[in-house]
Amino acid sequence: MLIREKVEQAKKLLDKFDVDCWLTFTRETQINGDPALSFLVEADLTWHSSFVITKKEAHAVVGEYDRLTVEELGVYDSVTGFVKSFKEPLLNLMKKLNPKQIAVNYSEGSEICDGITYGMFLTLQRVFAEIGFENRLVSAERIVSALRERKSATEIDNIRQAIKHTEEIFDLVSKFILPGRTEKEISLFMKEEVVKRNLEFAWEPKVCPAVFTGPENAGAHYAPTERKVEGGHILNMDFGVKVNGYCSDMQRTFYIAKEGETEIPIVVQKGFDVIVEAIDKAKSGIKPGIQGVEIDKIARDIITQNGYAEYPFGLGHQVGIFSHDGTALLGPAWEKYGGKPFRPLEPGMIFTIEPRLTVEGHGVVSIEEMVLVTEEGCEWLSKPQKNLIHI
Amino acid sequence: MLIREKVEQAKKLLDKFDVDCWLTFTRETQINGDPALSFLVEADLTWHSSFVITKKEAHAVVGEYDRLTVEELGVYDSVTGFVKSFKEPLLNLMKKLNPKQIAVNYSEGSEICDGITYGMFLTLQRVFAEIGFENRLVSAERIVSALRERKSATEIDNIRQAIKHTEEIFDLVSKFILPGRTEKEISLFMKEEVVKRNLEFAWEPKVCPAVFTGPENAGAHYAPTERKVEGGHILNMDFGVKVNGYCSDMQRTFYIAKEGETEIPIVVQKGFDVIVEAIDKAKSGIKPGIQGVEIDKIARDIITQNGYAEYPFGLGHQVGIFSHDGTALLGPAWEKYGGKPFRPLEPGMIFTIEPRLTVEGHGVVSIEEMVLVTEEGCEWLSKPQKNLIHI
Repeated sequence: MLIREKVEQAKKLLDKFDVDCWLTFTRETQINGDPALSFLVEADLTWHSSFVITKKEAHAVVGEYDRLTVEELGVYDSVTGFVKSFKEPLLNLMKKLNPKQIAVNYSEGSEICDGITYGMFLTLQRVFAEIGFENRLVSAERIVSALRERKSATEIDNIRQAIKHTEEIFDLVSKFILPGRTEKEISLFMKEEVVKRNLEFAWEPKVCPAVFTGPENAGAHYAPTERKVEGGHILNMDFGVKVNGYCSDMQRTFYIAKEGETEIPIVVQKGFDVIVEAIDKAKSGIKPGIQGVEIDKIARDIITQNGYAEYPFGLGHQVGIFSHDGTALLGPAWEKYGGKPFRPLEPGMIFTIEPRLTVEGHGVVSIEEMVLVTEEGCEWLSKPQKNLIHI
Repeated sequence: MLIREKVEQAKKLLDKFDVDCWLTFTRETQINGDPALSFLVEADLTWHSSFVITKKEAHAVVGEYDRLTVEELGVYDSVTGFVKSFKEPLLNLMKKLNPKQIAVNYSEGSEICDGITYGMFLTLQRVFAEIGFENRLVSAERIVSALRERKSATEIDNIRQAIKHTEEIFDLVSKFILPGRTEKEISLFMKEEVVKRNLEFAWEPKVCPAVFTGPENAGAHYAPTERKVEGGHILNMDFGVKVNGYCSDMQRTFYIAKEGETEIPIVVQKGFDVIVEAIDKAKSGIKPGIQGVEIDKIARDIITQNGYAEYPFGLGHQVGIFSHDGTALLGPAWEKYGGKPFRPLEPGMIFTIEPRLTVEGHGVVSIEEMVLVTEEGCEWLSKPQKNLIHI
């Protein structure tokens, strides 16, 4: 079971990083859940809930009405339910454990490790002051990052399955795309396939898939429109599904021939070839220990050296429970990315590689592949697109 | 449109509370969105995104790829897109507005107003220090509470529709409940009805509905089991759906006759009558200005004066975009509820009333009605259960 795997992994990470205690502290998780919760429990929780992991033990303090749900996971050494206040059971537990540091889920640089709200942090400080522990709070960023990023065999398998469905749906839609069909119609065809297969969407359904056809389309995160596919258009789409809670995130590019056109225009083919080369070279550079900023530069340079404008985002992000997951990023040294592009890559990380360029008068070439960092280097998880899909 | 209604309401609230500026600051909203976002934008956002409302104006600073989506709402006076950093456009905007206070979404006492993560709060402090604004940050709890709690006509209508569907599904399932059927089967019957009607579940589907039959059942937030309905059981269920993003949250109680039994046992009928009386008396006490703790006491006293154990939770919560919404609560003065039971009630608030008691040897009687606070008092939104549903 995933939760057992991840809680055991968390204990080992605490041991490795020599941190005494990791505390996830949250409430009303349907409103404002901590993203780390997916590894700790399988249900929404109502009242102030504490999950306390040490190098050897795992404990939970939750509202009495959530106690059974947590107990039945069978991974916690103790599960305490409370009715009127979480304070006494939590402080009793912490006094008994007496950790030197208490790592909690906050981070300026990594949203995925930034689960505790400011109000809840204030509550912890106030309550821990009663036992003199308020200055023991430190950031759990390292622990939460490693826990998310170093994927277990189960996690990798889930993502492989999600990719397989995604590729099958790309194959199906390639026969549906025709001149006269709108972005919305193409999107709906794919959505119906997701529902038929009883899958979840990898991100909000309004823009999953995102479909863009032709020059001056709406771009990236924008929902499919009534714009019609025409001969001469480049069409690209961004799409992913979830299997057992784990995502795929992929893009494919199509060329729609004009009436009577028998060859792909040179400018279109060149744009496509440059993207494929950028992906291949970037993929070849990926190995444990290298920084994402170096990988981003490989692809970015190929794009600009070929005379195209650089893509206005990072080359690739990690994928997991969320389509954007993990901390380490294949990205440039831009302020908004903070320290993410400088994190050394590690085995078990799963990244997208997704450069993009515009072919004037035709549209946007954008391919997004998925790769797994291995001990030796990196392997494809997706079957990479090597030929422009010609319609 | 809802967002227009709520942004205009927010401006009026800032004016009323004499606060210069309300800032919602968030990133990667599919991972860790701020619950206030539902009133500000209709899509997930990727990069550090700022929504700045003043007494007269509304502005947004978002990643370039989200700019069009926000612009098309037509409610923001300016929408600035950025590529490398949010800092310059946000600081330029704040310098121009030069607000005395900047209210941000944090609160110890109200989870629904506690949207900003600790990492994002640290970022704001650090960035605002560059222009000397770091000490202008205050809690937006009052504004966010009022915005959520004072429901517009559109919001109330959405909730009425959700209640109507819920009541219809209770009617349908009352014919499906029979001795020998399991909690899981009953739950599945209701879930299929939700899907048929193209509705969303009001909370996580695993426990929506929650179904409990007979004595010593699993209790409250626990998922339906293989336990079978038997003659002599009291069965209760907790269920809600969403219409246009707004929830219902209701409970109904059923009595399953034993073979040959022609009357409801006196102990069961008495338990039911006490719950109905507690709900009616509590409802009669609700009016603007009164504190929730007083309403909780009315119902709690009726339960205990009749010799039953008091319910181990608050009498009622607000309902809105979440099944648990708003700050003011009909609850006892327990530590975990903080100041919520002491907030004066206001017109436009929508509450549940949901006392509970156990009838030894039979099961749990639990009814949850929904009411709207009006200028004069309070009106039913649900059609209150007045008779035990006898099967």
